[in-house]
Amino acid sequence: MNITVLGCGRWGAFHAWYADRIGHTVTLWGRPSSRNLETLRCTGKNEYLTLPSSIALTDDLADALHNADVCIISISAQQLRAFAGQLRETGFSPSLPFILAMKGLEIGSGKRLTTVMEEELEPDVQTAVWVGPGHVQDFVAGMPNCMVMASRDMDLTRRLVDVFTSPLIRFYYGQDLLGIEIGAAAKNVMGIAAGMLDGAGLTSLKGALMARGTHELSVLIETLGGNAMTVYGLSHLGDYEATLFSAHSNNRRFGEDFIQGKPFHKLAEGVYTTEALVDLSRRVGVELPITQVLYSIVKLGKDPHAMLEQLFLRSTKAE
Amino acid sequence: MNITVLGCGRWGAFHAWYADRIGHTVTLWGRPSSRNLETLRCTGKNEYLTLPSSIALTDDLADALHNADVCIISISAQQLRAFAGQLRETGFSPSLPFILAMKGLEIGSGKRLTTVMEEELEPDVQTAVWVGPGHVQDFVAGMPNCMVMASRDMDLTRRLVDVFTSPLIRFYYGQDLLGIEIGAAAKNVMGIAAGMLDGAGLTSLKGALMARGTHELSVLIETLGGNAMTVYGLSHLGDYEATLFSAHSNNRRFGEDFIQGKPFHKLAEGVYTTEALVDLSRRVGVELPITQVLYSIVKLGKDPHAMLEQLFLRSTKAE
Repeated sequence: MNITVLGCGRWGAFHAWYADRIGHTVTLWGRPSSRNLETLRCTGKNEYLTLPSSIALTDDLADALHNADVCIISISAQQLRAFAGQLRETGFSPSLPFILAMKGLEIGSGKRLTTVMEEELEPDVQTAVWVGPGHVQDFVAGMPNCMVMASRDMDLTRRLVDVFTSPLIRFYYGQDLLGIEIGAAAKNVMGIAAGMLDGAGLTSLKGALMARGTHELSVLIETLGGNAMTVYGLSHLGDYEATLFSAHSNNRRFGEDFIQGKPFHKLAEGVYTTEALVDLSRRVGVELPITQVLYSIVKLGKDPHAMLEQLFLRSTKAE
Repeated sequence: MNITVLGCGRWGAFHAWYADRIGHTVTLWGRPSSRNLETLRCTGKNEYLTLPSSIALTDDLADALHNADVCIISISAQQLRAFAGQLRETGFSPSLPFILAMKGLEIGSGKRLTTVMEEELEPDVQTAVWVGPGHVQDFVAGMPNCMVMASRDMDLTRRLVDVFTSPLIRFYYGQDLLGIEIGAAAKNVMGIAAGMLDGAGLTSLKGALMARGTHELSVLIETLGGNAMTVYGLSHLGDYEATLFSAHSNNRRFGEDFIQGKPFHKLAEGVYTTEALVDLSRRVGVELPITQVLYSIVKLGKDPHAMLEQLFLRSTKAE
């Protein structure tokens, strides 16, 4: 099959590498000004992997979309709305399915990424999400994992799983798109919290973080009409190993550096998601104690040590 | 208050240390033949902590039970039935509450430890359990955690929480004793599984283990009449940091050593619990895929690498 990957950062390049590895014909697109694309063009590799020469690199979006059977998008979540507009202007086959290989919620609106796609393209655009655990470094080293594919249309989900399954990545079919998108985005928030606990010498509280973090999101998802159990599946809890405990996790490392006052070269995606979740929770009247504390620390400048201890150790509760 | 701790292994000695630290008058009992007791008597410490001289050490059970206001038991789970018989013969005040600071299920019967207490003593013996995350090494170093106190009687639970709460350990009131006891015991099983994944170079699958391990136990607990959500609280999921990810976890290390063919000096408690859970699941007709695979590896000698990969990576499922 002809697979096009839009976005050539860490995950985009990985998806191109993976689709090629399992036998597809792959085109990888980056913006004309993309430094990542320039690096891949000049050296054939980035800091995580080496691309085989069978992958076509391009900065021409019309060219990348032309002839694609499946299109994977992997860009920064906050840029998706503008990028979807660009896709609309460029044009693509109405039967082309998109897969969002990215995790986030839109700041300001708190909207899910599939909603953004529907609003900017058309209500029945075929969009799936591909989320769950796994680090590029581990996959490239041959370490297998289970991930999740989900969309509103189970037939589409099954077709896409058939295209992308391999011994390296086994898929679970997601049945609750809303819960999967919110859970996948929110795991980055818990990753930052985990890093802060590590940085504050409170690593032992990551157990409580897991139990209480899943719980608050479960309440939010149920309130929004999703399934309260989704957050305990692969898309959120199943991603905790990779996010809360791995040295490879950008969000965890951001939290650790933040609390220790070390410089960090860019904001982690989880920071935007924290803001979007706080908006969303206010709008629907659900309390998110952990997310709110992170917001107070990262956006309002509150003292992280005091806030974190208070969060878990303040009061005695029933469970 | 007068607190008696029965059992002077790692956890028993810690509970004595902790009760003393928060201002109680403490007696720590060990069997007359106990090497741990001998070490504590001779050196005043073990490999984890130093006991203050205010703690009375004894090997006289009647003496230890006399005047106790609360009695904490911390011995090997499989010895509880015989030990409860010894308590009955020794005699104690009918108003004395017991706290089981131990995790396990009885092999052969699959029974919970509070059930064993009721059967061997009397049906209305006051027994609570004190479970949840935390390693002795971390507590002694001043790292706080949240734990769970639970019994069939919420008044008793509240009274005991009041006696033992401090800034070092904050309690959640457990509301589902059955789910809490099974979950607390079963986390050791998941700890062994996590160690095997680490030892097999499949650490990235610990995410899937968390999602699927909680799920299978949730089904078991609900079938037995407990609350399906309990396993996602502090007593089980909240203990995963300490059990699945910590270098201090005996069960995790047992799994890692086992799969690498290294010698291990004793069986981890989780091995007994695996056997008890397999018995229990057969009796009530619930499938426990992860527990069953561990049983096949540890008790039936099946190939661990093949079994573990197959467990998580075999088939595509809905979630």
